[in-house]
Order: sequence, then C-alpha cells, then structure tokens
Amino acid sequence: MLKNREAARANLENLYRIFTVPEAPDSTLGAIDQAIAADVTGFLQTHIVAIERDLEAIEADFASAIIPEEPTYVSEYTEFVKENLVAQSVHTAAPGFVGHMTSAIPYFMLPLARLMTALNQNLVKVETSKAFTPMERQVLAMLHHLVYRRDADFYPAWIHNSQHALGAFCSGGTIANVTALWVARNRLFAPSADFGGLAQEGLGRALQHRGAEGIAVLVSERGHYSFGKAADLLGLGRDNLIKVQTDAHNRVDLKLLREEVRRLQDRNILPLALVGIAGTTETGNVDPLEALADLAGELGCHFHVDAAWGGPTLFSDRFRSLLSGIERADSVTIDAHKQLYVPMGAGMVVFKDPTALSAIEHHANYILRHGSKDLGSHTLEGSRPGMAMLVHAGLSIIGRKGYELLMDMGIERARTFAAMIRQYPDFELTSEPELNILTYRYCPLNVQKALAAAPAEQRAGINALLDQVCQLLQKHQREAGKTFVSRTRLRVARHDEELTVLRVVLANPLTTDEILAAVLAEQCEIVQQPEIQGLLQQVEEICTGLTAKAADQSPN
Amino acid sequence: MLKNREAARANLENLYRIFTVPEAPDSTLGAIDQAIAADVTGFLQTHIVAIERDLEAIEADFASAIIPEEPTYVSEYTEFVKENLVAQSVHTAAPGFVGHMTSAIPYFMLPLARLMTALNQNLVKVETSKAFTPMERQVLAMLHHLVYRRDADFYPAWIHNSQHALGAFCSGGTIANVTALWVARNRLFAPSADFGGLAQEGLGRALQHRGAEGIAVLVSERGHYSFGKAADLLGLGRDNLIKVQTDAHNRVDLKLLREEVRRLQDRNILPLALVGIAGTTETGNVDPLEALADLAGELGCHFHVDAAWGGPTLFSDRFRSLLSGIERADSVTIDAHKQLYVPMGAGMVVFKDPTALSAIEHHANYILRHGSKDLGSHTLEGSRPGMAMLVHAGLSIIGRKGYELLMDMGIERARTFAAMIRQYPDFELTSEPELNILTYRYCPLNVQKALAAAPAEQRAGINALLDQVCQLLQKHQREAGKTFVSRTRLRVARHDEELTVLRVVLANPLTTDEILAAVLAEQCEIVQQPEIQGLLQQVEEICTGLTAKAADQSPN
Repeated sequence: MLKNREAARANLENLYRIFTVPEAPDSTLGAIDQAIAADVTGFLQTHIVAIERDLEAIEADFASAIIPEEPTYVSEYTEFVKENLVAQSVHTAAPGFVGHMTSAIPYFMLPLARLMTALNQNLVKVETSKAFTPMERQVLAMLHHLVYRRDADFYPAWIHNSQHALGAFCSGGTIANVTALWVARNRLFAPSADFGGLAQEGLGRALQHRGAEGIAVLVSERGHYSFGKAADLLGLGRDNLIKVQTDAHNRVDLKLLREEVRRLQDRNILPLALVGIAGTTETGNVDPLEALADLAGELGCHFHVDAAWGGPTLFSDRFRSLLSGIERADSVTIDAHKQLYVPMGAGMVVFKDPTALSAIEHHANYILRHGSKDLGSHTLEGSRPGMAMLVHAGLSIIGRKGYELLMDMGIERARTFAAMIRQYPDFELTSEPELNILTYRYCPLNVQKALAAAPAEQRAGINALLDQVCQLLQKHQREAGKTFVSRTRLRVARHDEELTVLRVVLANPLTTDEILAAVLAEQCEIVQQPEIQGLLQQVEEICTGLTAKAADQSPN
Repeated sequence: MLKNREAARANLENLYRIFTVPEAPDSTLGAIDQAIAADVTGFLQTHIVAIERDLEAIEADFASAIIPEEPTYVSEYTEFVKENLVAQSVHTAAPGFVGHMTSAIPYFMLPLARLMTALNQNLVKVETSKAFTPMERQVLAMLHHLVYRRDADFYPAWIHNSQHALGAFCSGGTIANVTALWVARNRLFAPSADFGGLAQEGLGRALQHRGAEGIAVLVSERGHYSFGKAADLLGLGRDNLIKVQTDAHNRVDLKLLREEVRRLQDRNILPLALVGIAGTTETGNVDPLEALADLAGELGCHFHVDAAWGGPTLFSDRFRSLLSGIERADSVTIDAHKQLYVPMGAGMVVFKDPTALSAIEHHANYILRHGSKDLGSHTLEGSRPGMAMLVHAGLSIIGRKGYELLMDMGIERARTFAAMIRQYPDFELTSEPELNILTYRYCPLNVQKALAAAPAEQRAGINALLDQVCQLLQKHQREAGKTFVSRTRLRVARHDEELTVLRVVLANPLTTDEILAAVLAEQCEIVQQPEIQGLLQQVEEICTGLTAKAADQSPN
C-alpha cells in the first residue's frame, strides 16, 4: 500500500517534470536539437541512412498496437527515434532528391517553426491567436494581391473585415481545392425566395429546385487527384468530374472541352466549375487560362485555377505571363509548402470576390460569433496552427525578388536538364518543361525509330516492356539512395498511349548541373543490370522482327 | 548594366546563404531559439505582453497587402516578430489560461517538433515518408486499440495492410468528423448491381435510386459546430443536421431523439448517422453511448462518437466507464492536440471495421497506386506533415499511466473548482463537471432566489441583464491578461432558457488550486466596476419589484 503510494508520487513527479523541466543540452534529445540548430544539412546527411531498407523490415519496429503501460525515458525514446525513424526517413531536402515536390527549406524556417510550436496558437479564433489573426489575414491579402493586383484602396476595406475573409488558409492544396469548389457549389444554389439554398436544404433539394440532373466540374486529365476527392465529398459524384483530354503540351484541349460541356447540357447536368491548372502535378504545364476564363464567362460558371504548384511563378517578371488569365479566376489555390518553401502543412485559396466565402460561413456559440474577426468562420478546418507565420516570414525575408530568383532558376534548370536528356540518344523526353517539371523515359534510339513506324499492336507490346524498364529503373535508383526521381503514368500525345515515365521536379535551389548529370549517369548504369537488359532484349527482338517484316514488304 | 549584374549576383548569394548557412547562435533569431530551448516557460512569460492591446491597433502592423519587393534581414524580421507578433500573441500555455482547450505541452514536444520540421516528411505517400508511414499506422492502431480493444491477433492483419487503414490522421477534429460522416454517407449508398454508388454517381442519383427525400445526421444541441459544416459540405444540408435537445446534464434526450427519428421517417428522410458526444465542447458531458449504440443498431445506421475532447479519458481505470459504449461506435474522433498534449494540428478518426475507409478510397498515377501502403489513399487531406511522430512520442514517453494521471487530475481539479464556486453564494454553477469542463455565471444569491419564483417575462429580463454582466466580466478579465476563462451561450435546463455563461477547461496540469481561487477572486473584483454594478442595479430593481408584488399578493 505504502509502496503503491510511493510509486504514485514518483509517477506524479515524473509527469510534472516533463511539463516543467527543459531537456538538458547534454541529453540525447538536447544534443539532437543542438545539432539540428547548428547544421541541419549535416544532421540529415549523417542520420538518414541512404540505402533503402525493406518497408516490411521497418514495419517490424512499429508493430505493436498496445500503448505502452509505463512511461519511457525521453533519452531512451530519442534513441529509438534516431535509429528507427530518422535513419529510415526520406532525405527530402537532398539536392539529388528531384522526384517530388518537397525541397530544401531556408534555414530561418526551422527556428521560426519552433517559435510557432512554442506559442501553440490556434487560428480558429482571435481569443487563442490574437496578433496571429491579423497576420494570417495579411498573408491572405498578400497572396490575393499577387494574383489579382487589386488597387491599393481595395485592401483596407477587406483585409481585416469582420464579416469576410479574402481567402482561407488550409493544411494543404487539397483542402484549398475542396474549399473553392464548396464555395462554387453553394453559390450556384444560393438561397432565393422559394429556396433556402443548398447549404441549408441539401444537394438533393437543390437539384430538384433547379430541375437539374446533376452538377459537374470540368478539368483536364492532368488535374490533381484532389478534384476526384472533392467531387465525391461534395456529393457531385466522381462520374461528374469530367476529365478532358489534353493536347501535345498537356494543356486542356479546348475543342474537346466544349464538346464535353455540350454533352453535359444535353444530359441536363449543370457545369459547376471549370478548373484551369497552373502547373500540372505531373508535367508542370499551364492550361490556357484566358480561354478558360472566356468559356466560364460564357457558361456563367465558376472558374477555379489550381496553382498549388505554379502560383509563385507570378513572382517572376520574366515568366509571369505564362499564367496570364489567372487574375480572371474566381478562386486560386496556392500551396505554401511547395514553392513558397515553407515546411509541410500550409496551403491557401484566395477568392476574387471578397464576399465569396460567405457561401460557407458558419458560427458557433462559444467562438466564431457574428461580427468577430475569427478566421474559423470561413475555413473548412477548425483548430489550426499558426503556419501562416512561416509564410509571412518567407514573403518578408525572401521578398518578391528572392522568390523571383528561385522561380527563374528552377525553370532554367529544367531547360538545362531537358537539354542534357536530349544529348543521350537512349532517353526520350516525354514532356517539355514549361515550368520546372519534366518527364522522360529510357527508350533506345533504334526503338524510338521502330516505334514511329510500328503497327499499334507491336507498339503496345514494346511500350509495355519499356514501362517495366522505367519502373525498375526508378525503383533501383530510389533503393540505392543517391538520387531520386519519381515515376507516373502519362498519356503521351506523340505515342497516343499511356506510358510509364520518369518525373523530375526542379525546385531545390541547391540542385546543381553536376547532380543532374549524375542522375542520368546513374540511370545509364542501372539499365545495364541483367533484369533490365533482359527486358530490353525482348524489345530488341520485337524491333528486329518489325525491321525484317518491313524489309520483306519493301519493293526493292 | 554592370551595376545590375553585381546586384543580381549579390541577390543570388543572399539567396544561397539562407538555404545553406544556419542562423548564428548570437543572432537575434539564434538567441530566441536558444532561449526557447533553455526555458520555454520563461520565454513566453517574458515576451508575451499580458495586458491586451486593441485588435485594431495590432492590425495596423499587418496592414499592407503588398509583398515586400526587396529581401529583409532575418534579424530585422525577427525583431518585428518579437515586438508585433509574439508580444501580442496569446499565452495559451499559462496555467491561468483555463478558457479554451489549449494547454501547456510537455517539454520534449518542442525539440521533437523541430526534428519533424527538419525532416519535412510528407505522409501522403511512402516515397516521401518511408518509416513515418509505418509509424503513423502504428499510432492509428494504438488509438484503435484504446477504443476497440480488439484481440492481439486482430492487429497484425490490419496495421500495415496495403489495402486498408484503421483510421485517418488529420489536421484536427473537424476533418476527422467530416471523414467519419463521409465514410458513413458513401457506405449508406454503396455500389450495387444497378447503381454505381454515391461516390461515383453523386448524391442526387443516390437519393433517386433509394427513393428517399434526403439523409440526416442526428446529434444533440451540444454537438460541435463541425457537424454543421459536414452537413453542408457533404450535401446533406444544414436542415438535415437534426439537433436534439439535451437533458439537465447536457446529454442527448433519448425520448426526443426517437421522436426526431420518427419525424424523419415520416418525411422519407433516411437517418445517415447518430452522433454521440464524449466530452461536449462547452460542458464536457458524455452522451449515453450504450443507448445510442442500441438505437443506431435498431435503425441500421452509422454510429459515430465525437470523442475529440474526451477520448483520452479511456486511459483512466477510474473514469473509463464514463465512456462505455464507445467501443460499439462505427467511428470515433480523438484529437491529439487536445488531451494527448501534442501541439496544434493533429486529429484522428478510427473505424471499428478495418475496411470502412475503402468507401472513400482514391488513387492517382504518380502516387497512391493500388496495393501501395501510401496513407494518402484513405485521407481527406493530401500532403500532410509527420505530426503522428509527436503522438507516437507522447504515447511512448508519457505512457498509459502518465495519461491516466493527467486525466484523473483534470477531472478532480474540475470537481475542486466546482466546490469553490459553490462556496461563493453569488456564483451559480450552470453545468456540473462530468469530465474536466464546467460552466457557471455570476448571479447574486437573492437574484437566484427571485428567478426561481419569477414569471417568464421578468425572468427573461433579468437573464438578459445577467448575460451582459457575464459578457463584460469575461471581456475585462481577458483584457487584464492575468487569467482567462471563455464564455458561451447555453440552454440551461434549470432555467429552460439560453444563457451566457463562463466556461472553464481544466486540462493544464500546472493549474493549481491557488490559481483557480485567483480566477474567482479576480471576477469578484471585476463585478465591482461601475459598468457592471449599473447592470446589477437594474437586476436588483426588477427583483425588488417582484418581491413587492409577491408581498402584495401574499395573504398576510
């Protein structure tokens, strides 16, 4: 009994300690903390193991579903984390990691992120965020201005308006895209004399009220998968996300788009929104935004631009015009954890009409009261961290010109890499870089030639084998851990077929030409592996057969 | 021209520096970083200004919508942040801040959060998170086990299953609740021989297919406002979120609930889900979960429990039974940034049926491929940070017993505070603490007595004045900055009227009895202010009138 009471007291003391006593600088966790503060690059290079371990082996370290009964020492836990989590994480900041949209982040982000965590504000309401609320409102206004460039006298009326918000800060681009379409849907079925509005009465009643069979969103086949989620979530149904084929430059085909619109009208389905993409996830291309704005105007529907990736191109005097027409969009998504170089977990959507978000406004008794400036009344999410502070820091410290430099460098680097790929006859560029993303695949020169002339059936056979080559190539390179490219499936107009291709995203300012040369050199080595050579051998055989047949059929 | 080129080179060098050179320890930001590492409590106390500044004055520091053209020195920016953001933020970790659900967080969370930021993993896919994916899957399994306590042989089959996920990690409870109802909705309208399912064909077609007029969610009037958002977002319409009155203990009235269900059936509206609350946001009460499970079973509808706040009560041997029946829920929301003491931005929903999330499954070409273990195929959000690591750390370091202690202390502290309030005759407890939340208001004893006997009209007049007292009291206390309670509007059964009440959340383990006594003492002082005394004078006058009238009417 006495023992129990002693144990209880010891537990209580331990508990107080973790809330009141900082980690000593010479503790395991203190040492890691200092190492990261002093040299995060060095820390990551030292602690992340390059060579990939099997996922199944890693899973064995995270196998128990039972919450530990007794407390663990911080030092002991930190050792575990170092060995089993950090060591087996992905070095997303490495300059040779050019396969996904995560890049190096500026050094100042780390201490500021800690400050944000320490302050632990909740942006849902002023009472738990005070100055963070006007700060986030300013960030939204700055992004709004970047896109819409409204006059100086526009912003004072709206930036800190207690009834409205110029946009919504989100955990990422998916929530931003969903929010945009949510607003569009509720505005299409706004309250009227004899109808309470979709928000109030629901989609079923809304369709009845309009006598419509359904509502649809149109986007190119390059559209981000979040639009499929949005179509499901918002009740449209995935069938009503119309994916329009793209042209040879991965931009929505306007003729086909108009045909799809007509088909919808024939079926009594209302076009809810056209979505233009400013920087497709897979190829970095930009839709013809002016033409889309025209068509949306014609149809009287919402025009959303998903600029999650490409939005920051607007910083660049040289390349801004690639996005022209974006200022005519009703809503625009921009991710801060992509090309604003903020850590993971920060996206935004801004609206041309400063009252648009009223369509999803909501209130509660204990917060978000009418007339308060609480940001939570216009966001999909509830409690949210102060991530906007890191965007604020980036915009302030890097400045427009700094971001311009980052954008320009990325686009130029992509052009350089495309030129490098062209110099290897056995690589084939499958999408030209427009922003800083490109795709390519391994396809020996003679196969490229054979494919151009081959009948459909053989072409499919060859491409299926090349797809396997591509998949293995990407896998082996990832496992070797020196550099990393990603892969995707893409309908390539030239082949009129969906192919597996390698995908490269060039946003890390520390990625040099030497690293890019090494990526290709490593790939040339990997294709020498017997497994891949076996596949290429099969490709050769088909090609030889084709050449022989062609020779037979030739008149001389 | 030469000058331009030099300026360009200088800009480029500056840019490289922020990506490659750590902040010096003696820089402004370095010093802040070290101060936080050494003593976060001291840092917050020193740098957050207690006395509230007008929000309008703060807004002046965040007024420009123009992104700065030129870069700013990190030191200069840091000074700005210190003066204008940190100083004017809210000290959410202060032991006297007992008004909202943000509390102190354990010290180890800060360096681990920095490690997480430095690693910058993206949990949407294994390729950008590797070991973080199994780690997050383990966290979800641990929470699943906390709620459902399935056998040891259940988990190995599901925890790392490439087709399924036991739950979804989210940015917070709102996304968790939305995800639960999204799953419920899609399962209610699953694909069949002659119907592609709601996810595919949309809600309009789904309702037609079933011949139903609509679908509804039922929750008590204490339900979190996220359910209203969910009803809007998912296309049900807010009218189809049925808010059922509660009993004297803020628990859903089961008789009224059954009546509402019948009314829906009469109108050919299908009950989609019953929602039980385990810890209402405003009063911390727990719905009769067993009875709700029974009714949901009867109706064949989804049973969701919103345990965003109260879920961790399951750690406590003593209080776990308050939530009994939760293990019968089809889905359960638990917020980690609430009572798991993790920084802002971490919620979860777990599902009893390990295949439930298939109802919202989605794939893409470049990630989330079929058969991959990518967590992104079962989440509403796309790219997400590695916040699960902080939950993993909390569960490991604090352990079940540590969390039990935190839960027990909070509930006991609420009982202590309720006892204190009862000792002040001029305060009136408006909701008894069941978990660690309670509400009360200032209402002089004689007014309490007068109210009990007053006719409805006078009661309303008195309560309207007391509402103003409450509002001013809360405002002045917040502005003084020593302690903080929140306020809400609540239908109090005893008065059968919606009243403004003070709300206290007791989750910070550093909140002592002395601090609670000080909260009440300060409130007693504040009510002495002339503005409030004026209101109380008016109340007195009404009461005196009532007493006189009563005396007139009395027989002797």
